[in-house]
This record gives sequence, C-alpha cells and structure tokens, in this order.
Amino acid sequence: MATRQLKLGANLAGVGNSISFWRHPDVPIDASVNLDWYKKHAQKAEEGKFDLLFIADGLYINEKSNPHFLNRFEPLTLLSALSAVTTNIGLVATLSTSYSEPFTVARQFASIDKLSGGRAGWNVVTSPLEGSALNFGKGEHPHHALRYEIAEEHLNVVKGLWDSWEDDAFIGDKANGVFFDPAKLHTLHHRGAHFSVQGPLNVARSRQGHPVVFQAGSSEPGKELAAQSADAIYTAHETFEEARAFYRDVKARAAAYGRRPDDVLIFPGIGPIVGRTEREAERKYEEIAGLVEIGQALDYLGRYFEHFDFSRYPLDEPFPDIGELGSNSFRSTTDKIKREAKELGLTLRQTALRASTPRSAFIGTPEQVADRIQQWFEGGAADGFNVRTVVPGGLDDFVDLVVPVLQRRGLFRTEYESDTLRGNLGLPVPPNRYAAARAEAAAGLSRP
Amino acid sequence: MATRQLKLGANLAGVGNSISFWRHPDVPIDASVNLDWYKKHAQKAEEGKFDLLFIADGLYINEKSNPHFLNRFEPLTLLSALSAVTTNIGLVATLSTSYSEPFTVARQFASIDKLSGGRAGWNVVTSPLEGSALNFGKGEHPHHALRYEIAEEHLNVVKGLWDSWEDDAFIGDKANGVFFDPAKLHTLHHRGAHFSVQGPLNVARSRQGHPVVFQAGSSEPGKELAAQSADAIYTAHETFEEARAFYRDVKARAAAYGRRPDDVLIFPGIGPIVGRTEREAERKYEEIAGLVEIGQALDYLGRYFEHFDFSRYPLDEPFPDIGELGSNSFRSTTDKIKREAKELGLTLRQTALRASTPRSAFIGTPEQVADRIQQWFEGGAADGFNVRTVVPGGLDDFVDLVVPVLQRRGLFRTEYESDTLRGNLGLPVPPNRYAAARAEAAAGLSRP
Repeated sequence: MATRQLKLGANLAGVGNSISFWRHPDVPIDASVNLDWYKKHAQKAEEGKFDLLFIADGLYINEKSNPHFLNRFEPLTLLSALSAVTTNIGLVATLSTSYSEPFTVARQFASIDKLSGGRAGWNVVTSPLEGSALNFGKGEHPHHALRYEIAEEHLNVVKGLWDSWEDDAFIGDKANGVFFDPAKLHTLHHRGAHFSVQGPLNVARSRQGHPVVFQAGSSEPGKELAAQSADAIYTAHETFEEARAFYRDVKARAAAYGRRPDDVLIFPGIGPIVGRTEREAERKYEEIAGLVEIGQALDYLGRYFEHFDFSRYPLDEPFPDIGELGSNSFRSTTDKIKREAKELGLTLRQTALRASTPRSAFIGTPEQVADRIQQWFEGGAADGFNVRTVVPGGLDDFVDLVVPVLQRRGLFRTEYESDTLRGNLGLPVPPNRYAAARAEAAAGLSRP
Repeated sequence: MATRQLKLGANLAGVGNSISFWRHPDVPIDASVNLDWYKKHAQKAEEGKFDLLFIADGLYINEKSNPHFLNRFEPLTLLSALSAVTTNIGLVATLSTSYSEPFTVARQFASIDKLSGGRAGWNVVTSPLEGSALNFGKGEHPHHALRYEIAEEHLNVVKGLWDSWEDDAFIGDKANGVFFDPAKLHTLHHRGAHFSVQGPLNVARSRQGHPVVFQAGSSEPGKELAAQSADAIYTAHETFEEARAFYRDVKARAAAYGRRPDDVLIFPGIGPIVGRTEREAERKYEEIAGLVEIGQALDYLGRYFEHFDFSRYPLDEPFPDIGELGSNSFRSTTDKIKREAKELGLTLRQTALRASTPRSAFIGTPEQVADRIQQWFEGGAADGFNVRTVVPGGLDDFVDLVVPVLQRRGLFRTEYESDTLRGNLGLPVPPNRYAAARAEAAAGLSRP
C-alpha cells in the first residue's frame, strides 16, 4: 500500500474500561481474571486486523481502588497466554522500571517475543503511585525526575541484554558438536548509577530484533525518554488541538535526537462509542455514565492525587485548591485536571464525574467516528489510536462497523502485512549493536 | 480409587534433557525456544494423564553453559502460554527467592493459577550459581545458610499475599454498586529481616487456594524448608536405598512440624529409557552417550562447582581434591559427586561422563521400567516421579508404553480426578488464613 496507513491498538481491561463498566448487565463481573474474556477480545481485535493489543498495569491497591485494579491478571503472564491463541496481533504490556530488575524484564519480554514469533512490546512506565514503594520494600517512592533517570538507565540495560546474541550465533552443527559461535555471544558488563548487570541474557533475539518499546508519560522527561529511546508513545489528549500540539512537540524532539519522524509513532488513547445512529451512541454513553455513583467518582479522582480524600470537600463548590499534590504521581494527568477545573470553572462534582466517565470525542455513527479518526490521522495529531472499550460490546462495534469504513477509505489494512509487530507497524528491525559495530569497522567507517 | 495412586510429572527441557541430546538427528536445535515443541510435549503428557509438567530454570550463563541454558524460554511466560493450550495438567516452574521480589512472584504465580483455572505450582529454589549475583547488581551471592533464611521469609510473604482476598470477597452486586466486601480484603503489613511488603495483592486466590509449593534442595536447610512449608519436594537419588532413606528423613521432619506424611509428596527425578526389548533400550542409551565429547562433559561437571575449570587436571587419574569448592553452590549434588568419586575410585573422565550422561536405573522394557517404578513407589522411596526425557521420543515411549502398564496394575489413573493440580495430587485446598482465624474465633477455639 502506497499511502500512509493508520495503526490500531486495542486496550483490553476486563471490567476496568470505565468506572461503572462492571455494573452493566452485559459485563461478566470476573472479566479481569477470565482468560476466555481476554481470548475472545484478542481474537476479535485480530479479526479487525488491529496492530496490537495493550494491557495496562499498576502495582498498588487499596480498598478505594477501581474494581479492575483489585483483581486482575498480571500483564506478562496474560500476554504469554494470549500468544498461544493468536497469530498476527502484537502483544504489548506495561511494566515499571521503578520496581523491577532489568535482567528479569529483558528476559521475560524476550521470552514473550520468542513465544509469539516476534509480536511483543513493552510499555515503559515509572509507576505513578506512591503506594508502590510499600510493596517492594523501598523506603520512598523515587521522585519524578529520579524515576526517569532510573528508567533511562534501565531501558539501556534491557536493550543491551537483548543484543547478547547475534542473529546468526546459533550454528547447530550436529556433526561437529558446535552449538554456537562464541564470537557472536556478547557480555554486557554494565555498571551504572542504578544498576550493575553483567549478562549475557539467556534468550536470543526474535525475528523482530527487539520487542517494540512504548512509553506512556506525557511529562517533560516522559516526552524526552520517548523521543530518544522509544518506538511509540501513548498519550491521552481529548481535543484535536492538544493532540496535534503534542504530536508536533514529540516529533520535533525525536528529530533533535537524529531520528526520523516515523521512528516514533504516536498513539492517542480514545474511547469510541459507536451507534447505528447518533441517538443510539448517545444512549450507550448515558447508560454507562448513569451507573456511576459520586462516591466512586471521588475515589477514582483521588487515585490520581496520591489517594487524596476528596470526600471532605463540598461537592457543588469549585474544585478545591490542593497545591502541588499529584505532581509526583500521574503528573501530566493531574496538571490537566487542575487546569481544566480552573479554566472551565468546574465544581468538584463535575470534575470527578468528568474524570471518571469522560464523554468521548469519538462518539456517533460509524461514519462520524471514522471522520474524526481520519481528521486526527491526516491532520497531524496521530499515527494511530489505542482504542479503549468504554461501553459493553464497544470493541465488536468498532471492528464490525468502523473498521470497514476506514478500510473502504484506504486508511487501514484489509490484511496483515507481516506476522511481527514491527513489520505491521512499519518499524525497522534494530540491528544487533555488536554486529553493526563490526560491519562498520569492516567498512572502514568506525567513528573516531 | 481406593488404593494409593502414583503421581507423575514431565520435566520438559527443550534441547537440554541430556548434554548431547541436541546432537541427535531427531531433535530440533531450536527446541528450547520453540513453542510448538513444548505444546506437543505438554499435550502428550496430558494425554498420558500426568499430574504436571515442570520447567527448571537458571539465572546465569557463560560460554561454557549447556546448550539449553544459553537460549531458552523464561519459565513463567512459558507456563502461561501452555495454560492456554492444556486443560488438566499442572504447570510448575522454578523461580529463585534470592533474586526476586515477593510481590512480583506472588502476583505472577497467582496470575498463572487464575489463567489455568488452578493448575499452577512454584518450585522454590535459592539459586546455586555464584554468577547469578552479577546479573542482579548484588555484590555477592548470599551464602547457603543465608539464602535459605531469605527463602523462608520470602515464601512466608508470598503465602501471606496469596491470602489477601477471602474466597467470597467479590460480591459483584450490580444493583447496589457493591463490587466486594471490604471486610474480606486483608493487608499483610509484613516487616522482616529481608523484606518489607505491605500488600494487599491485586490478584485473588484461584480454585485451588494457593499454587502448589515445590522445593528442590536436598541439603539440610532445603529439607527443613520442604518439611515445614512445601507441598512437594523434588530429589535426585539414583538408587532405591538412597531414595528410601531420603523419603523417610523428609517424612519424619514433616511429622516433627505437625504435618501428615501425605502433606509433603516426594518426587525423585528419573530419566527412563524404554525399548520394546532390553537391547533396544540399551541401544538408545548408547546412542546418546556416544554423542558426548569429554570437553563438554568437563564443562558440564564444572558448572556444579562454581564454573571450575577441570580441564587443567589429567583425565585418567583419580578425581582431584578440590577442597570445599561447590559447597556454596549445588551443595547436595557436589557432595555426592565427591563422595562417589572417592568411594568408587573414579577417574576425572569417568566422573565427568557419569555426571553428564548418567545411565538411568530406569532402563529396559515397559514392564521392567514399570517394575522399578512400582518397587520405589510401594517400597517407601517415592510418592511420584519427575520424568526427564533423556532420549528423543522418551516422553512418547513413556506415555505409550509404560503408562498403560502402570494403569493395568492399578497404580496410576486412567482419567483425571480433578482439573486443579491440588485436586489431582490429593492435596487439600489451604484455607485462607484470615477466614480460618475468624472461624476459629467464632467457634470459641482461639488459641492463647
């Protein structure tokens, strides 16, 4: 296909797609720990030729957490299970660099990449919640800037370990008893400020070289990390103008690191609601929003602000001044919530309901939703979208009704181009760093 | 079935079942990273009504490592993938307490337990290899006794986290918006010498309560840990007398902790070689043993002794005196190798070949192998066996030829009793500690 193609991800989250989702009569209450539920949705996304499915994560709960967070599959084990029942779709999950060992992270993602034949992706996050530290024996949750410093080193170590074996290292000469070529095994010997990891890794590269690296923070250091080291970035912008400004910002940063614009794909997260008529789509939104209780909405809002208890404030007065709270947590989200509450003059109740069940900008008939997607995609606000299911049957509606419109318009594939995630996303296979250095030296091009 | 039933596990290890296994023409050289290979073997073991499959692990390699160790699936991701393509067989893997976070371990095993509907098991090890420390930024590999102290605390934390949610915590009352009962959510608040973990865990218990806990060390502290806290223990004894002595020892230790003999199942690892005639079985052994080169055998031996380089010693003189080397690594194995070399007057060459391709005591016709199994099982040396595939097609031979003999003798099931691992092993579902305490208090039986 000659024209630029849209990329699509399916954000699968059991009962957690919206705060009141679980209360809908069509949602199984165990969806977050039901392999059949995930299998059905993964296979539906694959039927719709989606590039990937995405599993988010979190490392701390308390009694006020969203139902989905309380009892859900651990993402890497879930991706692994889904690798055995899918064939082409990419498998991406969140894992925090603040509470994990690079050797284990490199190994588990490399293993999923092998299990799936080159379909794995890692969404690098730094853990926003203060509570995570309590589950990992750390005295304090590291501060935002330090978390990103740790993340950068962690990711470098992981990428180094992924290159432990050159692609042609395994000879398998049975007659002469030579299993591998020792010249193509590389030991990392990393010693840094936060990690010391010798290597080599005990898993070789997959057909796509490295798992695809996503990043999901929209703060300054988050954007820098993505521009420098990630293949793709998830964002959460609700308007075209915001999304376009973010898109330009990240592409410019990538260029400053000597990368091409297509080397960093930008995926806004959207929660489309599709009806055969506008009225039907509106009814679906109202049905879900009507199931939210204000107490839940306050708890949901509070989680972004280090589990702040908003119930002490009057509901129908302006959103309270809570100072810097939230700045060491989900910073880009909390900044936005505070700014909008101020600019739009929202009450606490309005802010909480808006945060807990946002009314999607992608609501309407299949043609209307496709129009909006096309506008963002062609208008320089997105390379693809990470599609959340915010109403029951939302993924089916999208695949059955919206995807065919996008396909007819020539914006989206009708068949997979590849069976690796990089292949479908149009990302190059990263060369093995040692093989590349040798090739460069051999060509007399080694840098001074 | 009224009579005591034999338990069977299938130890699946790609190209790594014996040192020269990969060189056999029938073995795919990528078996250790080939999901189809594992799927085929897992399904064959399930066809044979095996209780479980088992995946071993290691955290350090160098250029002298056994081919299988160099490039293999990470065990938890592999088990997860296999959970989606099997229905009754248990899924057990090794994970070290020396280089992992209890919160992550509890979570990933609980997730596999949910993915598989209650079929997960954890083989608790403390990592024998000194090199592991280098991949996890630790200054030194902890000493043997300290590793077991850490293991004991780690396992206690994991078990505590597994009880975070009582079995009836999730009410799912959609009409009233009550997802769970907060009185049935429990926060661990663990603070110990080696770990501080608050909890609660964000995965609930599966249908079998907890994953089954295996232990695989045969040293003194290993046996103590198993006797106190494990549901089953793997061992590696080559003679009936040794196995029986070990069996009696562990059962007596378990009794001293107030446990019943059946609460700790003992699984010697065996590498049966089955032929339709004795001669055919012998030929299969000779074919594999004949593929070993002495250099590989020395490397294989050296790995047990902290990667000691035995190639500096004369091959045909007595096994050298290397002092205490090996005592902080695979201690029970190295003690045994040293003792036998001395008692039997073995040369270095003989010791290395013996260690790298042991001639199984379970070799012969299906009837002969079944006889030996029956002798160990009825003679108080085993509750079951962990069956390694040491020749190509070994698992098929065992399932097709030996299992029917065991079934005809009434020693082994013809259908699964259950679809949980505990159910098939005859192990009780451990009660949730908080629910049990409340029930006890309510009955006026609370202990002083």
